[in-house]
Amino acid sequence: MSLQVPPSSFDRPAHTQPLAHPLDPITAPEIQKAARLFKDSNPNRDLHFKRIALIEPPKAQLRPYLQAELRGQKPAPLPRRVAALYLFRGENDTFAAEANLSSATVESVKKLDSRIHGQADIDEVIGMRDLCMDHPAVKKELDRLALPPTARVQCDTWPYGRDSPTEKRRLIQCYMYACGLEKEHPASNVYDFPLDFSPVFDMHTKDLVTMCYLPLGSEIERSTPPQEGHIPHKPREFHPDLLDTPIRTDLKPLHVSQPQGASFTVDGHLVAWQKWRFRLGFNWREGMVLHNVTYDGRELFHRLSLAEMFVPYGSPQSPYHRKSVFDLGDIGAGVCANDLRLGCDCLGLIKYFSFVINNSHGDPVEKPNAVCMHEQDNGIGWKHTNSRTGQVTITRSRILVLQTIITVGNYDYIFSWHLDQAAGLHYNIQATGILSTAPIAHGAQVPWGTVVNDGVVAHFHQHIFCLRIDPCLDGDTNSFQEEDSVPLPPDAATNPFGVGYATTTRTLARSGPSSAAPNRVHKLVNPTSLNRTSGRPVAYAIHSPPRQQPLLAHPDSFHARRAQYARHPFWVTAHRDGELHPAGEYTYQSLPPMTTTGENGKDEDENILPDNADLAAWAARGDKVDGADIVVWHSVCLTHNPRPEDYPVMPCDAMTVALKPSGFFDANPALDVPQSTQDANRSVLVADDDDAGACCGGAVGKEKEKPKEKEKPKL
Amino acid sequence: MSLQVPPSSFDRPAHTQPLAHPLDPITAPEIQKAARLFKDSNPNRDLHFKRIALIEPPKAQLRPYLQAELRGQKPAPLPRRVAALYLFRGENDTFAAEANLSSATVESVKKLDSRIHGQADIDEVIGMRDLCMDHPAVKKELDRLALPPTARVQCDTWPYGRDSPTEKRRLIQCYMYACGLEKEHPASNVYDFPLDFSPVFDMHTKDLVTMCYLPLGSEIERSTPPQEGHIPHKPREFHPDLLDTPIRTDLKPLHVSQPQGASFTVDGHLVAWQKWRFRLGFNWREGMVLHNVTYDGRELFHRLSLAEMFVPYGSPQSPYHRKSVFDLGDIGAGVCANDLRLGCDCLGLIKYFSFVINNSHGDPVEKPNAVCMHEQDNGIGWKHTNSRTGQVTITRSRILVLQTIITVGNYDYIFSWHLDQAAGLHYNIQATGILSTAPIAHGAQVPWGTVVNDGVVAHFHQHIFCLRIDPCLDGDTNSFQEEDSVPLPPDAATNPFGVGYATTTRTLARSGPSSAAPNRVHKLVNPTSLNRTSGRPVAYAIHSPPRQQPLLAHPDSFHARRAQYARHPFWVTAHRDGELHPAGEYTYQSLPPMTTTGENGKDEDENILPDNADLAAWAARGDKVDGADIVVWHSVCLTHNPRPEDYPVMPCDAMTVALKPSGFFDANPALDVPQSTQDANRSVLVADDDDAGACCGGAVGKEKEKPKEKEKPKL
Repeated sequence: MSLQVPPSSFDRPAHTQPLAHPLDPITAPEIQKAARLFKDSNPNRDLHFKRIALIEPPKAQLRPYLQAELRGQKPAPLPRRVAALYLFRGENDTFAAEANLSSATVESVKKLDSRIHGQADIDEVIGMRDLCMDHPAVKKELDRLALPPTARVQCDTWPYGRDSPTEKRRLIQCYMYACGLEKEHPASNVYDFPLDFSPVFDMHTKDLVTMCYLPLGSEIERSTPPQEGHIPHKPREFHPDLLDTPIRTDLKPLHVSQPQGASFTVDGHLVAWQKWRFRLGFNWREGMVLHNVTYDGRELFHRLSLAEMFVPYGSPQSPYHRKSVFDLGDIGAGVCANDLRLGCDCLGLIKYFSFVINNSHGDPVEKPNAVCMHEQDNGIGWKHTNSRTGQVTITRSRILVLQTIITVGNYDYIFSWHLDQAAGLHYNIQATGILSTAPIAHGAQVPWGTVVNDGVVAHFHQHIFCLRIDPCLDGDTNSFQEEDSVPLPPDAATNPFGVGYATTTRTLARSGPSSAAPNRVHKLVNPTSLNRTSGRPVAYAIHSPPRQQPLLAHPDSFHARRAQYARHPFWVTAHRDGELHPAGEYTYQSLPPMTTTGENGKDEDENILPDNADLAAWAARGDKVDGADIVVWHSVCLTHNPRPEDYPVMPCDAMTVALKPSGFFDANPALDVPQSTQDANRSVLVADDDDAGACCGGAVGKEKEKPKEKEKPKL
Repeated sequence: MSLQVPPSSFDRPAHTQPLAHPLDPITAPEIQKAARLFKDSNPNRDLHFKRIALIEPPKAQLRPYLQAELRGQKPAPLPRRVAALYLFRGENDTFAAEANLSSATVESVKKLDSRIHGQADIDEVIGMRDLCMDHPAVKKELDRLALPPTARVQCDTWPYGRDSPTEKRRLIQCYMYACGLEKEHPASNVYDFPLDFSPVFDMHTKDLVTMCYLPLGSEIERSTPPQEGHIPHKPREFHPDLLDTPIRTDLKPLHVSQPQGASFTVDGHLVAWQKWRFRLGFNWREGMVLHNVTYDGRELFHRLSLAEMFVPYGSPQSPYHRKSVFDLGDIGAGVCANDLRLGCDCLGLIKYFSFVINNSHGDPVEKPNAVCMHEQDNGIGWKHTNSRTGQVTITRSRILVLQTIITVGNYDYIFSWHLDQAAGLHYNIQATGILSTAPIAHGAQVPWGTVVNDGVVAHFHQHIFCLRIDPCLDGDTNSFQEEDSVPLPPDAATNPFGVGYATTTRTLARSGPSSAAPNRVHKLVNPTSLNRTSGRPVAYAIHSPPRQQPLLAHPDSFHARRAQYARHPFWVTAHRDGELHPAGEYTYQSLPPMTTTGENGKDEDENILPDNADLAAWAARGDKVDGADIVVWHSVCLTHNPRPEDYPVMPCDAMTVALKPSGFFDANPALDVPQSTQDANRSVLVADDDDAGACCGGAVGKEKEKPKEKEKPKL
C-alpha cells in the first residue's frame, strides 16, 4: 500500500493537444507554464510541488459550453486554470495556489492551516524510504535479524493514519519486508517475509519518532522483546521463474481480431461509439474520468469518477490500529497508473491514451498508456425465439471497455468502464496483487487475519470505494429516489389472495445519506422530463454490487470520522464547484471534527477546517436536491477477509456498479443493433469427428472452418 | 410463458453412446426401450407419456463408482433405470412407474393421488390450444373484437396456478394475443396486442370452465362489459424487417479464433479443461446438469443443477392473482432448450452437445445443440507490478462456458456455467425475450405494472431460481456455515481505537433455512479436512447476486406455500435419493398443506401428499447436517418491475452465483497459468496516426499488425 514510483519517461515527447478543450487533461506545456508562474511569484525559493492540476471550469460556464457543442456550435474557449499545492523545500508550510494559464497570472495563494497535509508525493516518499533504509536504528534492527546475504530488504512507506486528535506533525510509518532469502529475482514476492519492526519518521524534521515492534500473536501491543535472528520459512512466490510447480501447457491461444478496424472514433479526448459520446479525462488523483456522457444525443452524466478509496485494516493491534489509506487522496490513482502493455492487459484491437502529471520540481512526468480502450464481445444482447414459427431474433452485445490499472504498493486495482449498446454503463472494480502481510509467530492464529504462509498473516480489511456520479439526465434538474418493492397488504377487496405488490418511492428533498435495502432500487430521475411510453419521469437506476457491508470500524473511531462517506452507501448533495473529494481535499493524516465523542471539547471547534470540508459537511447543509443540480456519491465496499487462495498473488476479485436506463428511453435502446449472424461472426465448430476418439489428456477440435451450408443442419 | 414446441427431428439419427456411463443422459434407444416396457405392461391401452427420465443411481452406489473412476479403476457398470409418468389417453389417472432397462423389467407402478398432476406436456398443450382456438366461445369473442384480416391470433396456455385449497380438476388458463395487425411476419411481436378475454379449460373433460374478462384499470375484477371492436395502436416490433428505424451500420466485426484448437477434451459426456473434470448431464426438467466436478483431482461438487424457477406475478387482479409458473416443474428447462446456432449464440470455437427427451407417445425427440461449450477470455487473471524493479507479472483469465438457452413462451433465459482457472464456478442467469403483457385502457396506469405501449401493460413479477448444490468437498462429510464479519466491541484493553473486526461462524447443526445479511458469507466446509496453510477446515464460499429480495407474496398466500423454497435464500438438507425438486416432484397446480391459515381444517391433512413432499418438508425432518452428506439449496431472485427499455424485447438482465474456494487450496490455484504475452495473444495497436485525423463519424484504427519490436517503446 506504499507508493509506486512511476518510471521516468523523459525520452518520450510530451503529449500535447493542438486546441485545448476545457475538459482536456492537463498537458506537459501547461504543467511547465504553471510551475514557472508559481516559481516566478516566489523568487529565490525552492518550491516542492505536491500537485499541479487542472481546475475544471465552473459548471455555470462549462454546462453552456458543452450544451452549445452538442447543438453543433463552436463556443468561445474557456480559460485554462490550474491549482497547485506546494511547500518551500525543507520548510513545513503548505500553500494552495491557483493560476490562470490563459492570462498567465497567479490568481490566489493561501497558506493552509498547519494541521493540513498534502499527499505523500513520490519524491518525498523516495526520500523518506532512503532515509529509513540508511537510518542507524533500522540498520541495527536488520543486524539483529541476521538475514542471509541474498536478502533484499524493502521499506514500504504508509500514511501514518491517526490515533490522536492533537497530533499535528507530518508522520510516516515504514513497514519493512525482506525477499530473495533463497534466491534473488526482480519479481520476488516482497511481502512474503514481513519484518517485525516498523519505524515512524517525522517527514519534516526527518527524525525517527518511534520504533514499533509488531505483535506476533493476538496481543494488542507486542508482548515479547525483539528476537535475535530470523526464522526462515519456505517462500511462496508467483513469478514463473520462481515456482516449484510446472506452468500449465494445455492452454491454447485465443485471439480476438477486428479485420475492419474498431467501431469507435477518437478526436483528441472525444470518443464516440455506438451512440455514446464522451470526453476522457485524467488527473493525478482520480485517474480516469468520464465527462459529458451522452447517448444518442441525450445528456446522461456530466461527470463520472472514482472519487476516493479508503482501506482500513481490521486488526485492533498497535500499530495496525492506524493502518488505513486513502489511496486517492493520500497517494493518487493517476500517480499510480500502470503503463499498460499490448497483448498483456487487453486482448484485441487496442487504443491507448497517455497523460502527464507533475513531479516535485514542477516538471511534467508522462503516464504513458495509462488508459486503454477496446471493444469486447459480451455474450448475447437480446434474443427471442418464436416457438410457433421457429423464428429466432438475436443480437450479440458489444461493449466498449475503458481500463486503467493502478499499483499501490502491494495491491493492484483494475478499474474499467464498460459501455453497452443498451445505454448501460458498468463500473467494474477488480482487486489483484499481493495482500498486505504482517509477521506472526509460527503456529499462531489471530481472529482478524488469515495465515497465508509460515510466519505470515494477512489481516482482514475493507476497500471502500466512492463513485462520484454527477448526473444531467435530460438536463440539470435531477432528483434522487429510493424505490422499494412492497407487498400490498392482504385485503379481501384489494388484494384477496395476498399476491399483489407495488412500488413506493421516496424522493430525497434535502441533501443527506440514503440507505440500502434488499428490495430497494436507487434511481436518478428528471422530474421535468416524462417518458413517452410509461408516462413516468425519465430515470436511470444504480445497481450495486452484492457485498454491501458498511464500514465495520466503530462510528466514533478515527477511521469512521475521517471516512464519513464510507458509513452510508449513498449520499446526495447539491452541486458546488470544487466539491470532488468525499473525504476532504486533504486526506493525509486528516483531522476529523471531534463532535461525536466530545472526548476533547477543546478540540471540537479547532478541528473543523473549512479548507478541508468533507461529504458529511456538504450533505449537512441540507440543500434542496429535488429537481436540482445534484451529485450522488455511491460507496461500495469489498470486505476482504483474505483466503489462502489470495496468496502469494490474488486472483482478481470483482465488483460492478451499473448505471442502467430505467424508463429513460421509450423502448429497448439496443433494438437497432444488427442481428447476430455467422456471416459476420465467423465462429467455428468443434466437429464431432474431431473429438470422437479423443480422451482426456490431449486437446481436441483443431479449428476447421466448415463450409457454411454444412455448419448446422436446418430442422 | 406458455410451452415451446420443439421442432421434430426424426430426420436426424438418434444419439447413442457406445458405453453408457451411469450419469450419461438418457438415449433414444433407452427411451424407446422404456416406452416399450411400459406399453407391454399395459396391453391394449393407449399410453400418454408425460415423462420418461433416467433415475440416477442411488448415491450409495454412485459415489463408490465415481471414486473408483477417480482412482483410475474401471468399476462394474450400474443398472440403467428410468422413471415414467403416464396416463391412459382420455382418462384422468396418473401413474408413476419405474423400470430397469438393464434387466428389461418394470419394477414398480403406482397410481398417484388424483390431486397430483403431471406437467403440461407439449402434446397436451398443443391439443388444448387447438381446442381453444376452435372453441365457439373463443370465436365469438374474436368476432366481437373485429380484428383486421391480417391479424394472427395466438393462444398461450398457462399453468392454472391455484386460488382454492379444494380445486382438484386439471385446469389450464389461456391468454390470447394478436399480432400482424398491420403486417404479417413470422417474427412479429406476438405480445404487443393482448386480448381482453382469457378462457379456462378443463384439460381432462376439455370443457370450457369459465371465460375471464381481463381488468383494464386497477380494479380487482373486470369492471366494464366486454367492448365491441378493438382499439388499434402502433405496434412495437423488434425484428429488423419490422423496424421503422435503420439498423446501426457502424459496428465492425469482432472475431475470436483459436488457431491451435480448443483447450478442452471431450470423451462422451466427460469434459476436462484446465484441471477441471466433470460430466455433463441433461434431462427434460433441469436441462443442463454438472456431475462429479473435480479440480486438480480433488472432489468439489457431486451434482450442480438449476432445480426450479418460480415466476409469480404481482398483480392482485383476477385472474392474474393465479398467474405463476414453475418453469421447470410445470414445463421443463430441457423441454424448452433452444437449438443453438453457430455464430449466433456463441462466438469462437464451439462444441455442441445434443440430447433426447420423449414425446407423449414414448418416442424420442432430439434436442439438438441444447448445450454449447467454448472458451472465453475473461480479462486479467492476476497481476502485480513490482514498483521498485518495474517487473510486471501478469496472467489473463480464461474461462470455460457451458451454455443452454430456454424459451418459455414469451421469456427466454440463458443459463451458463463459467469455470475459471482459479477453481471458481460461476452460474450465470440471464433473462431476455418478451415481457408477459396484459391489456390496459389507453391512458390508464396500475401500481403493479409499467405501460410499455398504448393499451399494453407489463406487470411486476419475480423470477425465483433455486440452485441445487450437492457438495463433496474432499468427500461427503460437509457442513454449511454462516460467516459474519463483526466489529469487535470497543474496549480499552482489547480494541482501544474501535477499529477491530473479526468473523463469527455459525455451523448449521440441523437441516433448515439460512438467512442472508449484508456482511454474511455462506460457506460449504469439510470439517474433517484442514487447509495446510491456514489451519482451518477447507471451504468453498457461495457468493450471491445483489438483488436478494425474498418472495414478495404474503407467507400465507398460495404462491408462498407452493414455493416455500422461495422464502429463504438458503436451505440445507441431508441428502436423500430422489430429493431433487424443491417445490415438489409435481408442481402443476400443486396443493400446499393448509397448516398456515387453517382456513379449512378438513383440508389440512388431506393436502399433505407424501408423493409430493417439498424442500420445506425435507428440511423439517431436522436431520443432522454438520459433517454429513448435505445438499444446499440457494434461491436467487430477480424482482422484475419492467422498464419501457425491456420492451418490445428485453436486453439481457444478468445475475451470477459464484462458488469460490475459500481456504480450499493452500495458495492461489491459478499460480501456474502461463504469463500473458503479446507473443501468444497477438493484440493489435490502434496507432495514433490512424486516428489522428479522424473525427467522430467514421471508424478508425484499421487493424495493422505492427512489427513486434515497435509495438510499445520500452521505458
